[in-house]
Amino acid sequence: MTDGKRKTPSPIDDPALLPYLPMLYVAWADGDLEPSEIRSICRTLTEAQDDEKQCRDLLGSWLDPDQPPSADSLQAMLGAIRTRSADLPDTDRIGLADLGVELARTGGREVSASERRALEEIEDALGIAGTEVSQLILFPARPSETAEEPGPAFDVAAMTRLLDGEYEEIRNRMRELLRQPEFRYEYGLDRAAYRERVLEWARRLAAEGIGALSYPEAQGGAGDMLSFIAAFETLATHDGSLLVKCGVQFGLFGGSILQLGTQRHHEQYLRVVGSLELPGGFAMTETGHGSNVYDLRTTARFDRGTGEFVIDTPDDAARKDYIGNAALHGKLMTVFAQLEIDGEGYGVHAFLVPVRGDDGRVLPGVRIEDCGEKLGLNGVDNGRLWFDGVRVPRENLLNRFAEVSVDGGYSSPIASPSKRFFTMLGTLVGGRVSVALGAHSAAKSALTIAVRYATRRRQFGPAGAPETVLLDYLTHQRRLLPRLATTYALDFALKHLANEYQEGSDDDRREVEALAAGLKAFSTWHTTDTIQICREACGGQGYLAVNRFAALKADTDVFSTFEGDNIVLMQLLAKGLLTGYKRQFGGMGLLRLARYVAGQTATTVAELNPVVTRNTDESHLRSRDFQLPAFRWRADHLLSTLARRLKKRLDDGMDPFEALVAVQDHAVATARAHTERVILEQFWAGIERCEDPDLAEALVGLADLFALYRIELDRGWFQEHGYLEASKAKAIRKTVNKLCCQIRPQALHLVNGFGIPDELLGAPIAT
Amino acid sequence: MTDGKRKTPSPIDDPALLPYLPMLYVAWADGDLEPSEIRSICRTLTEAQDDEKQCRDLLGSWLDPDQPPSADSLQAMLGAIRTRSADLPDTDRIGLADLGVELARTGGREVSASERRALEEIEDALGIAGTEVSQLILFPARPSETAEEPGPAFDVAAMTRLLDGEYEEIRNRMRELLRQPEFRYEYGLDRAAYRERVLEWARRLAAEGIGALSYPEAQGGAGDMLSFIAAFETLATHDGSLLVKCGVQFGLFGGSILQLGTQRHHEQYLRVVGSLELPGGFAMTETGHGSNVYDLRTTARFDRGTGEFVIDTPDDAARKDYIGNAALHGKLMTVFAQLEIDGEGYGVHAFLVPVRGDDGRVLPGVRIEDCGEKLGLNGVDNGRLWFDGVRVPRENLLNRFAEVSVDGGYSSPIASPSKRFFTMLGTLVGGRVSVALGAHSAAKSALTIAVRYATRRRQFGPAGAPETVLLDYLTHQRRLLPRLATTYALDFALKHLANEYQEGSDDDRREVEALAAGLKAFSTWHTTDTIQICREACGGQGYLAVNRFAALKADTDVFSTFEGDNIVLMQLLAKGLLTGYKRQFGGMGLLRLARYVAGQTATTVAELNPVVTRNTDESHLRSRDFQLPAFRWRADHLLSTLARRLKKRLDDGMDPFEALVAVQDHAVATARAHTERVILEQFWAGIERCEDPDLAEALVGLADLFALYRIELDRGWFQEHGYLEASKAKAIRKTVNKLCCQIRPQALHLVNGFGIPDELLGAPIAT
Repeated sequence: MTDGKRKTPSPIDDPALLPYLPMLYVAWADGDLEPSEIRSICRTLTEAQDDEKQCRDLLGSWLDPDQPPSADSLQAMLGAIRTRSADLPDTDRIGLADLGVELARTGGREVSASERRALEEIEDALGIAGTEVSQLILFPARPSETAEEPGPAFDVAAMTRLLDGEYEEIRNRMRELLRQPEFRYEYGLDRAAYRERVLEWARRLAAEGIGALSYPEAQGGAGDMLSFIAAFETLATHDGSLLVKCGVQFGLFGGSILQLGTQRHHEQYLRVVGSLELPGGFAMTETGHGSNVYDLRTTARFDRGTGEFVIDTPDDAARKDYIGNAALHGKLMTVFAQLEIDGEGYGVHAFLVPVRGDDGRVLPGVRIEDCGEKLGLNGVDNGRLWFDGVRVPRENLLNRFAEVSVDGGYSSPIASPSKRFFTMLGTLVGGRVSVALGAHSAAKSALTIAVRYATRRRQFGPAGAPETVLLDYLTHQRRLLPRLATTYALDFALKHLANEYQEGSDDDRREVEALAAGLKAFSTWHTTDTIQICREACGGQGYLAVNRFAALKADTDVFSTFEGDNIVLMQLLAKGLLTGYKRQFGGMGLLRLARYVAGQTATTVAELNPVVTRNTDESHLRSRDFQLPAFRWRADHLLSTLARRLKKRLDDGMDPFEALVAVQDHAVATARAHTERVILEQFWAGIERCEDPDLAEALVGLADLFALYRIELDRGWFQEHGYLEASKAKAIRKTVNKLCCQIRPQALHLVNGFGIPDELLGAPIAT
Repeated sequence: MTDGKRKTPSPIDDPALLPYLPMLYVAWADGDLEPSEIRSICRTLTEAQDDEKQCRDLLGSWLDPDQPPSADSLQAMLGAIRTRSADLPDTDRIGLADLGVELARTGGREVSASERRALEEIEDALGIAGTEVSQLILFPARPSETAEEPGPAFDVAAMTRLLDGEYEEIRNRMRELLRQPEFRYEYGLDRAAYRERVLEWARRLAAEGIGALSYPEAQGGAGDMLSFIAAFETLATHDGSLLVKCGVQFGLFGGSILQLGTQRHHEQYLRVVGSLELPGGFAMTETGHGSNVYDLRTTARFDRGTGEFVIDTPDDAARKDYIGNAALHGKLMTVFAQLEIDGEGYGVHAFLVPVRGDDGRVLPGVRIEDCGEKLGLNGVDNGRLWFDGVRVPRENLLNRFAEVSVDGGYSSPIASPSKRFFTMLGTLVGGRVSVALGAHSAAKSALTIAVRYATRRRQFGPAGAPETVLLDYLTHQRRLLPRLATTYALDFALKHLANEYQEGSDDDRREVEALAAGLKAFSTWHTTDTIQICREACGGQGYLAVNRFAALKADTDVFSTFEGDNIVLMQLLAKGLLTGYKRQFGGMGLLRLARYVAGQTATTVAELNPVVTRNTDESHLRSRDFQLPAFRWRADHLLSTLARRLKKRLDDGMDPFEALVAVQDHAVATARAHTERVILEQFWAGIERCEDPDLAEALVGLADLFALYRIELDRGWFQEHGYLEASKAKAIRKTVNKLCCQIRPQALHLVNGFGIPDELLGAPIAT
């Protein structure tokens, strides 16, 4: 064959040129040779070929930068190389020069020593030493993919049992229940149908006794709050709307009756709430006031004449908003309103207010509007409520913490209105614990899907080799594995929280509330971040509804907002830290801040040891002796400097509220550092309790990764404060990379350890 | 009145106790007095009252820690204080001690000097010096909210014109068009109805000539790519599905015909593509291969006998996936397939393949499946395509870069198959430019909604004062304003990119492609992050579909994946930087990496000047002389160390692909640093061109915030490399806070400067 514009025969037709064929092909096919490079090749060739004039001329003409070969000629060269090399032995790891020598041999031509030198020089000049190019030329199809994931280094079922803890039984019951075909996911349902589906599902759970788990046995429950929480956590690996519907009905609505009501309310309502015969809701939030419950504006005026409370919505900003179960199904609401007796305000109290009759019709004086389409959780019928002179009997006050007598006398076991308010709110901390755990389960689902996909999906790869499994890419490990480690770490902290919530005495109530605030914020933010990264890590597949990220993302997105806005919660925790949990803040509480702050400024923070701040040994970095003190030092230092900055402002006569606003970012950082410290401490405590050495070893790796990743993220701060020298900060980064590589082979088994059944994961890319 | 358990009369009945009434109330109502505190108050009181035995005894009984007053008594005390102080003048800034004195006076009792001292001591002991407590006691209702936003310091319309630039006219035309009632948003539409709505909308835009803007005038267009891009950018403030539907039809499908086809294709198709009479799609992605186009596996075999190409899908992994317009509306597809002639592979080429007839029926040999529900963009009918021996005439090869003759001869103006491949792909870079701009518009919408809401919504506040506007909180400013600054900064960089894309010569094509890769990744990540933060900043309101975040989030989420996965793109840019844009990498390209890398390792990075690394003056931090060199130094340093690390691995004989994987995180950081540098440079260049001093001043503040915020985010790195000393890193953090406060009063006007009509924002909370 000939090239269009060229008179000389193609090198494939001339045995003399055979040794140069691979080089020629590469020189042109690579497409980016610069003229100077081609000239250099030319020179090398022609020098070597001094005694073979004809060959040199031929080659020269094929190497003229102004006269590149045609696409067709190049293709023909490639074809000739492949044909001629087809029967050669041992070509799978051959360099270009050697390939040329072998090709020449197939044409019966021996290559001289000087020619071989020239070939090697060109190979060098092209900058393609190595065997990859010939791999590509000779084996255009990538080899088939054979690598398998390494087996588990620990007993995966044992890991699941470890994480399940004491509540293994209820978790397994939930898993079995939710695996049933009736709970199968369906996509693209319209809102009305979805809401009905969720109601059916919730009834099914109620029928199984799940809803009443935390209620007294006398009311058909099990009297076991932790069991309910464990069921809720497991439920969160299923549909988000079902989770929230159940949370509203059994947790918030039923919980408010349980915690704020007394025996008469328990007897009258809890059984039918738990069985879902009486659907209801928790009407706290108003359009104008969400996190700031103290300033709610719905009123409950006591009418001495009839012995009733009269519930009113003064204006649209005071309408109850976002109330789950309000738009369609709810019949009775726990309504939070400002109690008024004889024109005097007694603060926020909770009242049971019927909003729909048995026939489902909205009752007189009540107006209800559907909140409509939401970002997620569209299976929950959120609505808005207005009350216009709605009368409820005196007994409908949930009266555990305050009673109004027939003649309008007000009494309470808690004299201080401020303390009473926070005691009432405090009983609802279970909601925060539950949201933290619910978010956590969603993160586990997302990680399970993304890690499984990442061990199967291949894309790109070294020349001539199978494409590379996604999880073998450092960037992919970097995205998924630290989040996997954080999720494991959180598991121990959240279970600690649930236990403290259940078992804590009244004395440490505030500490539990503060811990719940911090962990709820951390967990929900972690979940939002993790699901997002997992979605991106699954590319377009992650964008399909069947692969679950759509629902996981959308449904959990509001977790950072409800049950307390995360930023508000972080400040609540910071205030708790500032006062050693001695006070609640709100109403007039803030005004005594100065005295507690002064106490905190005296906190001494451990001195830095320059030997430690410079130590870059991996064994040091991976030891608890480095990690725990680092987390503690940061938390202590942030707290004492926060107190000092606040004190300065208060001393200068700044309004306490404004002083707090001025150091708000510092307060949030303090709360976050404290929360991370608790997480690390609880993770290590959990590892110490673990008796299975294989599990413990796997967990230690995760704890190291969690700790060092968090320090890495905040290494700007640690360096600013002299805790890390630059060399150590760099060493930590490297160790994080190394840990990612070390954990990678176990990643699949670690997500499987979460124990989420395939039916609940749903995602075809992961099951 | 009397207290239940108490025999002594209430202090409200005894004039002698009136001066102590406010203290008594606060001591108990505050709810958290410790017994030691109460005892200390008791002591102070009894000491002062030595000569008034009766009064002392009475007080003592009311301060007994074991006998707190009842809730009712406390409420009565409050009532008495309020009643008695009602007619007092000047109580709005009175301290507790003074209030006591005044109350006594209303009862006709004068307070002695020693009593006054005692009162002051107690006030101090309670830690409530100041006037806030009496504010709270006397004025339980917060004052009404009167503060207004400050006016603009610049001409808002002029800012919009500045951002609109040369393409103001088409942008205004788009705004006017999209404001029409027919384009009004509707929520909760089912998928089928939504898809039809989007098709109608797209037809409407086509009828206005928007679709054909980039096509030649001869085919009914305006021959103006930048005009099309500007229209697309503006369209992105409306519905995401409409944006992507138009992007697929006019940009990708039409664009592939325009860029990869020749005159005959233009004449035959462009007019009907632009008018949407011929809906089509762009079938590149396969289930098994997205970003890795080189390894696509659909085949197009040339049948010499009939002169046709035969398109086949070898297996399910090679099915075309996620193809917009495929599930319902598309009739013709640009299909990317491996060209085979006589069993030889020629690499990926594009073919026009009909998939539906005029009647809308799927053609023989073609199988189509709907991708179903997605996370977002559900108004776009994405589908999957399988081809089974589908024959298309030879003319259906888009033959600008390669032709197959009747007898199967292959020719191309670009001899090198590698270069040809990248030239083909390179023509499609417009898609990346468009996605970067589309994401950018969505970020603007989100910021406009969130900032407007943040200037209206109030929550919490100082005691007795109106609640505080959200945007007056530091944490709120911290969340929104740096993102606002980044969005402004990006605006200039993205317009620079669009211009370079349009005007760049063939020589700097690779640089433009690399820039598009970096900015597309940066912009889409920034958008995902910004929308998320904006949603959270709007709390529950942000979760309602009508307030737009649901759609903004869901629709743009896939932007980080399509038109090139962001992580892959960042590595593309890093490779471009490593070679000074001299090479494309892919196929065998990577193999010559070593030679270019060696060149980069010689790059010298400017020496550090200790005077500069320690300078914490605000004027220095806010100067271009600090910011630009910092961005440049980081980019240069990362690049040269990346090259060095790579070279070491290559010198050690590591496979180039694996060497790159080993330093992947470094490569991504390098690409990001480079992109941020370009953004800052372009922002400053834009400010220099700005002739309106008010606008320029506003932009300078944003540039400072952008630059310092980015340095703050990466201050870990800057400290590790000795570029910032700890004191300077801290000073930067403080300056970011200060800039947030300074920009806050203009925030509303800055988002209004984006010029998004209310009808397009939609959100009731913002309009």
